[in-house]
Amino acid sequence: MSIELNCPVSFMKHETIQMAHGAGGRLSRELTQKMFLPHLGNSCLDSLDDQARFFLEAGMVAFTTDTFVVSPVFFPGGNIGDLAVNGTVNDLAVGGATPLYLSAGFVLEEGFSLAELERIVKSLADAARTAGVEVVTGDTKVVEKGQCDGIFINTSGIGVIRKGVDISCANLKPGDSVIVSGTLGDHGMAVMTSREGLSFQSDIISDTASLSGLISAILDEVPEVHAMRDPTRGGLAATLNELASASQAGVVLDEASLPVRPDVLGACELLGIDPLNVANEGKVVVVVPAESSKDVLRIMQGNTAVSGKDAAIIGEVVDDHPGMVVIRTLLGSRRILEMPLGEQLPRIC
Amino acid sequence: MSIELNCPVSFMKHETIQMAHGAGGRLSRELTQKMFLPHLGNSCLDSLDDQARFFLEAGMVAFTTDTFVVSPVFFPGGNIGDLAVNGTVNDLAVGGATPLYLSAGFVLEEGFSLAELERIVKSLADAARTAGVEVVTGDTKVVEKGQCDGIFINTSGIGVIRKGVDISCANLKPGDSVIVSGTLGDHGMAVMTSREGLSFQSDIISDTASLSGLISAILDEVPEVHAMRDPTRGGLAATLNELASASQAGVVLDEASLPVRPDVLGACELLGIDPLNVANEGKVVVVVPAESSKDVLRIMQGNTAVSGKDAAIIGEVVDDHPGMVVIRTLLGSRRILEMPLGEQLPRIC
Repeated sequence: MSIELNCPVSFMKHETIQMAHGAGGRLSRELTQKMFLPHLGNSCLDSLDDQARFFLEAGMVAFTTDTFVVSPVFFPGGNIGDLAVNGTVNDLAVGGATPLYLSAGFVLEEGFSLAELERIVKSLADAARTAGVEVVTGDTKVVEKGQCDGIFINTSGIGVIRKGVDISCANLKPGDSVIVSGTLGDHGMAVMTSREGLSFQSDIISDTASLSGLISAILDEVPEVHAMRDPTRGGLAATLNELASASQAGVVLDEASLPVRPDVLGACELLGIDPLNVANEGKVVVVVPAESSKDVLRIMQGNTAVSGKDAAIIGEVVDDHPGMVVIRTLLGSRRILEMPLGEQLPRIC
Repeated sequence: MSIELNCPVSFMKHETIQMAHGAGGRLSRELTQKMFLPHLGNSCLDSLDDQARFFLEAGMVAFTTDTFVVSPVFFPGGNIGDLAVNGTVNDLAVGGATPLYLSAGFVLEEGFSLAELERIVKSLADAARTAGVEVVTGDTKVVEKGQCDGIFINTSGIGVIRKGVDISCANLKPGDSVIVSGTLGDHGMAVMTSREGLSFQSDIISDTASLSGLISAILDEVPEVHAMRDPTRGGLAATLNELASASQAGVVLDEASLPVRPDVLGACELLGIDPLNVANEGKVVVVVPAESSKDVLRIMQGNTAVSGKDAAIIGEVVDDHPGMVVIRTLLGSRRILEMPLGEQLPRIC
């Protein structure tokens, strides 16, 4: 199929999304050929078949999906485009998989700016290159003005699971160490404080990043990792409660060890939000046998791609209170860290 | 993880979708455990890990994605749930793949009825069983009232491509026959005529169906198929123009042979729409060497699962006018069947 590459948006007939861009006809093709292929093109995508095709060796495959509805679409440190890649790449990586292929499904609102769409597609393409994945298949739908909020992006991803790892949220064992790869709550607070109506003087930026490189480095050296998760929606509290519940093990956190940026803490206090309930988009929680914890911490702290310098061992897995997460507070008391109910931070990813 | 199965919606705390259902906390978990798992559950999905994991033999894999924004959500013959399964299953099947695994990503509007959501999830589950696929991973996002139109569903799918087939939209060869598996335009007209403001006395029902069984039967007997596509958005006109363009071959259709239901034709005439531009969701266009065309037609006409009785050989691939589709009209003249511009039928899938 003849494809006119490198045609900038200004060569398109319109400046905003039209209903016809999603109707499968000539304008749909123009959007694909002038917007998506120049940035994302590869041999699979360029074929414009209804499905991507590629060869996989025999083995365990990981498959995941995530729809991104973040508001606002552009926030300090990123936008919905890179977020959509990093979120799905990270969901593959925490399963011990090497992420390989992504799909991208766009829902666009009639009237959405094509220039903004191009910024988003470019970020998405850059994030994919950084994470070492290819967007091999896609879809675009357009809905009438007022029927969606600008742009939603679904990405689904395929990765190949490393041999010799056995990572699951049900694998926590008493005595394991709980380690986090950096400061907590940055993404959620970056999005919250950039919303209209909140005029914070804040330099908080999102941590949106691919964890694939860091996790690969950890598993190269420490294949005995028991569990791994990226604490996104619901934050560390949701992640640890899920792990504790799935493993029927208890988790005890040491409040003093939890890495939180002072400005994130300040913003959380102003908004009445617990930073442990706030989403991260470039952090991983790793649960490993205690004897491996120092190795994992060293690898994290040495990783500059995801700013691992604030990585910390934050707690341990215990026999007591199975399914429950408990914090030893700065004052020496203990409180239960509950699964967040969840209504505080809508549309953070 | 303990899962309370078979809890009907009436046991949930709310009757409509709340923002917290999408926030990753307790209500998100309730929605997963009481709505999605009882209908869709399987060993992959039940683990509630961030990614599904399964073993694949070495080979060519097909991967596709589609977001469904159909309006209205319920239409004669189906709803967005079965449509989301059939659309993605069909995009795998037309690539010569056996569909195996699906993801499902929901975007829900605050206030959406949980009872309607359950009807949709049940249809989605039934369609998956019929097509022989499992929904192995999922995601749910909730946006504020007014920020999306009820429900959007993305499904992505993975299939394994049969050995010994070479199907591509660039494979048309002069002399090939073009065959369609049944009547054209049923899905699009079923949706259009059920929209508010149009009060047709019509019995038109959508053809939404999995083509996987039919295509498998065709490829068992006729592995030499050159190209296959399901004529969805943009209808037969878009599909054939894409095939002609990708193959740099001409296509000539015989108008008298095109199967269109009289009531679909009538509705199209009233609305000023060419039925060849109207979406189908359970039809396949197959391009094969002429000597195999009778075999394909026989298999189609014998298939009751997708009402193949109206299948027809509708045209041929020619040396002339490469990239162009021409119709021999009932009056004996010739007209070009153009790629539709596309604005006539928004949100049909």
